Amino acid sequence: MIIPLHPRLTDSELRELEEITVEFGVRIQPIHGHERSVYAILGDETSPDLINRIEGLAYIERVDRIQAPYKLMARESKLSHHRVALGKKVLPGDFCVIAGHCTIDPRQKELFLETAFGVKEAGADMIRGGVWKPRTSPHSFQGDAKSLEILMEARERTGLPINTEVMDFEQLKICVEAKVDCLQIGARSALNYRLLQQVGEMTRNSGILVLLKRSMHMGPVSEFILAAEYIVAQGNPNVMLCPRGTVPTIEGFRSAPDESITMLLKERTWAPVVVDPSHSVGKAVYVPGACLAAAAYGADGILVETHCQPKKGVGDDPKQAVTPEVLARIIRDTRQIHAFARHYAPKAQAS
Amino acid sequence: MIIPLHPRLTDSELRELEEITVEFGVRIQPIHGHERSVYAILGDETSPDLINRIEGLAYIERVDRIQAPYKLMARESKLSHHRVALGKKVLPGDFCVIAGHCTIDPRQKELFLETAFGVKEAGADMIRGGVWKPRTSPHSFQGDAKSLEILMEARERTGLPINTEVMDFEQLKICVEAKVDCLQIGARSALNYRLLQQVGEMTRNSGILVLLKRSMHMGPVSEFILAAEYIVAQGNPNVMLCPRGTVPTIEGFRSAPDESITMLLKERTWAPVVVDPSHSVGKAVYVPGACLAAAAYGADGILVETHCQPKKGVGDDPKQAVTPEVLARIIRDTRQIHAFARHYAPKAQAS
Amino acid sequence: MIIPLHPRLTDSELRELEEITVEFGVRIQPIHGHERSVYAILGDETSPDLINRIEGLAYIERVDRIQAPYKLMARESKLSHHRVALGKKVLPGDFCVIAGHCTIDPRQKELFLETAFGVKEAGADMIRGGVWKPRTSPHSFQGDAKSLEILMEARERTGLPINTEVMDFEQLKICVEAKVDCLQIGARSALNYRLLQQVGEMTRNSGILVLLKRSMHMGPVSEFILAAEYIVAQGNPNVMLCPRGTVPTIEGFRSAPDESITMLLKERTWAPVVVDPSHSVGKAVYVPGACLAAAAYGADGILVETHCQPKKGVGDDPKQAVTPEVLARIIRDTRQIHAFARHYAPKAQAS
Amino acid sequence: MIIPLHPRLTDSELRELEEITVEFGVRIQPIHGHERSVYAILGDETSPDLINRIEGLAYIERVDRIQAPYKLMARESKLSHHRVALGKKVLPGDFCVIAGHCTIDPRQKELFLETAFGVKEAGADMIRGGVWKPRTSPHSFQGDAKSLEILMEARERTGLPINTEVMDFEQLKICVEAKVDCLQIGARSALNYRLLQQVGEMTRNSGILVLLKRSMHMGPVSEFILAAEYIVAQGNPNVMLCPRGTVPTIEGFRSAPDESITMLLKERTWAPVVVDPSHSVGKAVYVPGACLAAAAYGADGILVETHCQPKKGVGDDPKQAVTPEVLARIIRDTRQIHAFARHYAPKAQAS
Repeated sequence: MIIPLHPRLTDSELRELEEITVEFGVRIQPIHGHERSVYAILGDETSPDLINRIEGLAYIERVDRIQAPYKLMARESKLSHHRVALGKKVLPGDFCVIAGHCTIDPRQKELFLETAFGVKEAGADMIRGGVWKPRTSPHSFQGDAKSLEILMEARERTGLPINTEVMDFEQLKICVEAKVDCLQIGARSALNYRLLQQVGEMTRNSGILVLLKRSMHMGPVSEFILAAEYIVAQGNPNVMLCPRGTVPTIEGFRSAPDESITMLLKERTWAPVVVDPSHSVGKAVYVPGACLAAAAYGADGILVETHCQPKKGVGDDPKQAVTPEVLARIIRDTRQIHAFARHYAPKAQAS
Repeated sequence: MIIPLHPRLTDSELRELEEITVEFGVRIQPIHGHERSVYAILGDETSPDLINRIEGLAYIERVDRIQAPYKLMARESKLSHHRVALGKKVLPGDFCVIAGHCTIDPRQKELFLETAFGVKEAGADMIRGGVWKPRTSPHSFQGDAKSLEILMEARERTGLPINTEVMDFEQLKICVEAKVDCLQIGARSALNYRLLQQVGEMTRNSGILVLLKRSMHMGPVSEFILAAEYIVAQGNPNVMLCPRGTVPTIEGFRSAPDESITMLLKERTWAPVVVDPSHSVGKAVYVPGACLAAAAYGADGILVETHCQPKKGVGDDPKQAVTPEVLARIIRDTRQIHAFARHYAPKAQAS
Repeated sequence: MIIPLHPRLTDSELRELEEITVEFGVRIQPIHGHERSVYAILGDETSPDLINRIEGLAYIERVDRIQAPYKLMARESKLSHHRVALGKKVLPGDFCVIAGHCTIDPRQKELFLETAFGVKEAGADMIRGGVWKPRTSPHSFQGDAKSLEILMEARERTGLPINTEVMDFEQLKICVEAKVDCLQIGARSALNYRLLQQVGEMTRNSGILVLLKRSMHMGPVSEFILAAEYIVAQGNPNVMLCPRGTVPTIEGFRSAPDESITMLLKERTWAPVVVDPSHSVGKAVYVPGACLAAAAYGADGILVETHCQPKKGVGDDPKQAVTPEVLARIIRDTRQIHAFARHYAPKAQAS
Repeated sequence: MIIPLHPRLTDSELRELEEITVEFGVRIQPIHGHERSVYAILGDETSPDLINRIEGLAYIERVDRIQAPYKLMARESKLSHHRVALGKKVLPGDFCVIAGHCTIDPRQKELFLETAFGVKEAGADMIRGGVWKPRTSPHSFQGDAKSLEILMEARERTGLPINTEVMDFEQLKICVEAKVDCLQIGARSALNYRLLQQVGEMTRNSGILVLLKRSMHMGPVSEFILAAEYIVAQGNPNVMLCPRGTVPTIEGFRSAPDESITMLLKERTWAPVVVDPSHSVGKAVYVPGACLAAAAYGADGILVETHCQPKKGVGDDPKQAVTPEVLARIIRDTRQIHAFARHYAPKAQAS
């Protein structure tokens, strides 16, 4: 939809516009409103070159896009009945919990295993453990690949599937080879389209799940859904969308909590939504409230940083991790709230 | 705390700083860190003139305030044990629900009364109805004082207390005279300090409650708490803090939902928090999820736009209002979630 | 323009939509694009009740407004050739400078007069001086009406017109009676529509100018222009639009500088734009750069806090005020840059 | 600086805090203010593990960092006298202009060469041309490596140095091999720390310049400066900082213009600042104003998308590019304004 700067285009302006649209194989239909006119583009309006040409005209205010920018992720796509199996849970439908350390300290294997058994006992469905870590400062420690072995040992001993974050192609290859059950794409990589494509390609037909965090800098939810489209377009539909808070932060929280966008995501795509309240609020004392809220908004699961002894953790764990005891109570409450929330789900979701 | 632009002040810079602080009756204590020094202000650092003088110096980056800017609203104030009685509920402690039309259409008295009985039946504790309306455009309808009579009739016939918004001194006087049980200060007035003071003054010792909405433009929660301080400082401690979403909005919602700040407010003040999810999400289909989330975050109540026939409503009601039937289910679920949430409340709240 | 949540409305959805539009006296025209349809509203689509009714439907994503929300302020309005006379300057066309204290300290009359003569000497066209001050904290000093006499004495002795801020009806009456040449509406009042109307009404046919600051919380520029429409709609077209920075701030500046929106304002309205760089950047050392930038973006003038001895100032002056010497250089440079900028003005402005 | 949630820590809270700090080899010094106490960390407070441990305590509100997070980029670093040579210009000091296509269309070699000669004639110092392009949608064209040959031919024929963007390691290697004079790191890569390190490493001692754009999602300027630190820490000090607008955008512009942060960058680092007004405002008609403003704020140069026939451009060029004729006038005006702006530079910059 083309919005002119002024109420009506002059004849010569309209002629220039029509010449451009002809060039791109689309047509223009004026819509004459009470006080101003706008001009609909009939045909494929998705060409960025077309939009740029029109928006470059001095007498045009803007071009409003009316097509959904994603296709496979849309509720009405051929994938709309796809379900993601996470351990014994099927999503959407069940409520799943992923829990564990933000960072696995390779010097503290026993602690991680204690946590792994603790979250299993609490009722979690998958174990999370960070192997490599992004760092804002070039002068600090960047992670240790040996932690992967610890994570795999935890899988073997607990029988639970595992999740870890990959940040580049090399890490991706290592994890696919190790048959890590779920690859996490972190908030800093969520706009790295090249990596998203590689993830989709490398995990095609592998049964590997992908948990895609929302970039902390993302704007409209369509940008988030589109990032998932990159992965799905390469042939792996086993994606889960993970809101985790945005910037600018709310003073007091680590980020601006965005648990609420779960409602928008559920309405617009068929993909499961698994919320990360730990990074959203950023402090253990606020995590339970945010977990319950995620379930209230209709999430299909939560990702909760959990540590058997938070004070001994590294990375964000001393600040954010809850104990397995608190996790057990959170799981009990969120399952009930998940059942409450399902009653209000819009018809669209029932299909 | 004074933060210089560069690692250390020169002797002459420090001297200039000391001369200023002496003038304001405070002292400076340097804190020499590993790589830079900062300078603590000992004494009353709240004088804006002092802060402006120091921040005006070219070699100073900023002055960080360390005093809480509010006093009476703080958890440790003498009011920390104050409780607000709303109908039969006592807050904090119980969970309350305020419900009714965003706007009372003076031509549709019967509809409003039907809603009033409907929300009573659903379990609401107070009836809401807008009498005067702020409008963004100077060319549109601004409300009708006669609606107040309808609201008062609803009180008389249902026996429930009533709430309405006041936007200026004149409306305030009318409502105090009419003994409206709860005055609502809307998001557009939440930074109108003069009005806040007048509200506090006019309702002193009256037993009238004040529901203060958060400005949609507010930044840190301290700014919100401070706005309430204006009212309380005039002698009326019966305030309730009401988050209602902020700008910039999240595309899809009316505002950016801020139900989550409930956790910060509960931690920092003793005042009850009553969330308005209707204006936060802005569409009836999202309201139940946001209500449940408000309870999950620990709110003491919710304010829910409810209409017996939303399509016949005026103002925001056709878009945002839920029916009394949906409200009844929301009330049942939020009461349960409120009970869950209380278990996680930080120790501070137990006092 | 109605945007459905899904690619196409079903027949029954379309029927429901048509029933609503008939009720409001407008019609619907489907626009079938390549992959989805949207529905244009033919007729007056400005009714908020209509928009709310449609947006309330579960299958509608949103309604995009295509009409400009302001009329009198638009470039194509009957006021498009109106010019504002400020001292000897005519705007748009000339470049004007308003300068003086943020706050007049009633105990320091001589200082203010010294500044007044200083800014006249530097080349300023109008003297600014704050009489009453808004304060964020209820526990601090709120201003002194006697300062108005000092301001009027400065007018008499320098021969320059004067500007001061009014925050409520009482102050407005005092200033209109005193024939203050230019009333300033501060950023905190810029969304106070009732006050804006009163200002327009009280100054109708008075020749009094109104300098309207942008709310620090404003979103789209249309909201700013619409606020001015409130004043103009009451009969006073002598408004000047004053960007002054927004929140969230940029760390280091007082606000997020918005000098750049000058270009959008100049394109969309006929009204002069006078930028306040002092509150935008918030520190004297940054003020000259921001003044030059305002001229570069095409502003018709600047409002510069100036003090003959900044350290002796009160309020924001010690932090923000430049000296008359610096002001003189700023005036010289901005006049030249104003001339450069005029060459690039879009055709729209030439009309 | 540790800020507790409440006015004073209890003895047992203080003890717990002291135990933690001892563990990390730092000490705590209480600062008793008038109404509350804060606690300074004496020693190296930069350890994220230390900060996380303390912020994890329920009774702590936050830890304010007082150390500058960057070292080499700081004004007082050993690099403070480093100068960057760009063609015949030396920065800071001179004013430089980089201009050319956003995207080189490999099918339109002659057009690009015409632009190259045009910008040389207009007075530009370096030719810009995009070879590979990031794309938000996985369904659109991603660029063509053959364009690099055209760019190199333009260098050979005009004698001007060239600039192009690299987005991954592979592209980086190709460009270093081809001895591209200046590598541009785009806004989408500006938080990709791994790539920043690789760029620094691969260009060490090569004389290759790096133009680092600000992420459109960056918050405080320290985050921007820190990103540059990644490159410089690997041994290449020839970086230029390039503000290019941020999100959320200002409706009407492509981004929220951030030309103003030039003043903060110039104050805090020694590195040259080269502003990209084209992506900031996003439309050719606004570009000249934004260029002039960049110079007014004190920039050392500008990067201007220029095209000999904008309508025939691809990518953003039809919308954003100015013609060489307009560029010539911009260059003339910005050079004069650069001279004006230098007079106001804070003393820090004179050193």
